[in-house]
Amino acid sequence: MKKIAILGSTGSIGQQALDVIRALPSKFRVIGLAGGRNLELLKKQITEFQPSMLYSLAKLDFGYKGEFLPMEEIASHPEVDLVIIATSGKAGLSPTLAALRAGKVVALANKEVLVMAGEIIIGEAKNHQARILPVDSEHSAIWQCLQGEENKPQRLFLTASGGPFYHYSQPQLSEVTIEQALRHPTWKMGKKVTIDSATLMNKGLEAIEAHWLFAFPFDSIEILIHPQCIIHSIVEFVDGSMKAQLSLPDMRLPIQYAISYPERLPGSRPRLDWSKIQSLSFEPVDYDKFPCLKLALDAGNLGGTYPAVLSAADEVAVELFLNGEINFTDIASVVQKTLEQHQSIAQPSLEEILAADAWAREYTERQRNARTGERGET
Amino acid sequence: MKKIAILGSTGSIGQQALDVIRALPSKFRVIGLAGGRNLELLKKQITEFQPSMLYSLAKLDFGYKGEFLPMEEIASHPEVDLVIIATSGKAGLSPTLAALRAGKVVALANKEVLVMAGEIIIGEAKNHQARILPVDSEHSAIWQCLQGEENKPQRLFLTASGGPFYHYSQPQLSEVTIEQALRHPTWKMGKKVTIDSATLMNKGLEAIEAHWLFAFPFDSIEILIHPQCIIHSIVEFVDGSMKAQLSLPDMRLPIQYAISYPERLPGSRPRLDWSKIQSLSFEPVDYDKFPCLKLALDAGNLGGTYPAVLSAADEVAVELFLNGEINFTDIASVVQKTLEQHQSIAQPSLEEILAADAWAREYTERQRNARTGERGET
Repeated sequence: MKKIAILGSTGSIGQQALDVIRALPSKFRVIGLAGGRNLELLKKQITEFQPSMLYSLAKLDFGYKGEFLPMEEIASHPEVDLVIIATSGKAGLSPTLAALRAGKVVALANKEVLVMAGEIIIGEAKNHQARILPVDSEHSAIWQCLQGEENKPQRLFLTASGGPFYHYSQPQLSEVTIEQALRHPTWKMGKKVTIDSATLMNKGLEAIEAHWLFAFPFDSIEILIHPQCIIHSIVEFVDGSMKAQLSLPDMRLPIQYAISYPERLPGSRPRLDWSKIQSLSFEPVDYDKFPCLKLALDAGNLGGTYPAVLSAADEVAVELFLNGEINFTDIASVVQKTLEQHQSIAQPSLEEILAADAWAREYTERQRNARTGERGET
Repeated sequence: MKKIAILGSTGSIGQQALDVIRALPSKFRVIGLAGGRNLELLKKQITEFQPSMLYSLAKLDFGYKGEFLPMEEIASHPEVDLVIIATSGKAGLSPTLAALRAGKVVALANKEVLVMAGEIIIGEAKNHQARILPVDSEHSAIWQCLQGEENKPQRLFLTASGGPFYHYSQPQLSEVTIEQALRHPTWKMGKKVTIDSATLMNKGLEAIEAHWLFAFPFDSIEILIHPQCIIHSIVEFVDGSMKAQLSLPDMRLPIQYAISYPERLPGSRPRLDWSKIQSLSFEPVDYDKFPCLKLALDAGNLGGTYPAVLSAADEVAVELFLNGEINFTDIASVVQKTLEQHQSIAQPSLEEILAADAWAREYTERQRNARTGERGET
């Protein structure tokens, strides 16, 4: 029986993690939950899973019998076997570090943790013999393909759906509405990651994650557009052999693999049916049309505080877009300008990373005002 | 330095195995060769690789300094680390058994060995802690996908190119010429296996091999037509995750993997280039149009001496077709008739298997005369 804590249990990944655990009650027990502002859902989860430790951003208005603890204490609690970091943004950083320093197995679904502080996170995992297990479908695919392989692979191919606008022209892209951008063709996800998928920023963030998770140089990570989202990524070995992991797009599979690893457990999710798949298609990436991807790869490659700035600027830019304050194509230019103005610090400390994050948020926010001014709006 | 013996070095697989070894001289040394009737080629191989042990079906007319030995003795020689069984037909049976009884690692490219005597072969491997490593691209793919997996998979999908006639109509199929049948769309192989690929008998034989190699029931083995031959097979796990192995169709890759295992070594073969692959397509199998596949799966499922009879009858039938004595579509009917007339023996001994083989050859030969008579030819 694995004892699990889920930080971010009311988000999309958190809910799906609970789906997986609900279906395998003899294998997993939830002993800690941390939820955000969706209090109704958190209350339901508490009632169902009876966690002994709880963190809640909002004030709870019903009698909870367990212990209220900060996320860091839940993540590093001696009773916890595995922590699912399903928070978003920089909220996952400190609990992830706490879990790693306590030698826990960390199933990491919070992209920003590795994007912002990859070097520190990987270093702490090594220092404390803690394991980081990927939850993203792409990284899970790579990880599955690397099982039992003695030699490091030569190249990674991160597949990308291309999002809803892959075949849009440049003028069409600048007129994309919020509603259109929130309608992803294959994956059902939170808002931020859905917009990031539409700009392909998400794939760039994933490349940075892959770089840290698998100790891979950026020039060995390639992006491949694969609209059906059946092949979740591909690994190429020195002998020219490639391995791919395939399944219907369903986050519950990589979540389950991470928490059941090294075992595989049954799952009653819909299966890939080859009689219904006539073809799997592939296209090269159009970096000109999706500058966010290039910005992310460059920031990852440059390192220092650039990735943290990229991540923070993107978070603000996506918010501005979702508030109707900038256009879809402005997301890239706003992030780019912030990156251009940034003075990066090499091998930054956590404090320096958080300072860069704060600077980037403020700088990006300020561009909103500039742009609103330019467009003559109030 | 792995010391290798290659039985069947002048055949297609044998030559490609020597290509692999030639490119990795610091890793492998050829210490035994066994060749068939292509004496010129065998002489060249001897001059280049200087094996200390030799078996030659034809009489050698030049001074060879090493030792002439029967194949069984080469395969079980104390100095040999790994034996590549690249013979064809039942010729590989006895040397494979000798190698396994000596506890050798056997890289098995000879289909008939497992088809005819799977139970005996697997039993001997277990008894003597010998390993059988697959060389066929499909089985190598499955084996690569199973690396590091703790749980047995749920299903195997053996991919098949479909051969050159997959979209032919029934009447077109009966008029297929020998020349057409020998022109495989993707793989360059020996004649027998090329015809078997065109009838899909080959895929049926591979299903029987997969059954023995991976201890898989036939109802968990599915055949999937995949004309591009890029995905070499797919494995499905209990959680619904699938893994596939991909590469350009080139037998040197699975050969190299088998002899370098568990390491992977560099290879300068052409690589799969995703910018050139627009799509990978899949189709269900048409068992009505390719009855050989069904015959093979049924024979495998029934077990006993049926698979040996299938294999022998097919060998004779393909020969009859290549001699212009029967039509392409007669291959299936001739094999079917032989199977129908056979009295199978459950859990047969090697002698009973060889007797069934001899009976099947004779019975199938006799059908030639009947058919030639029917068609009013001499």
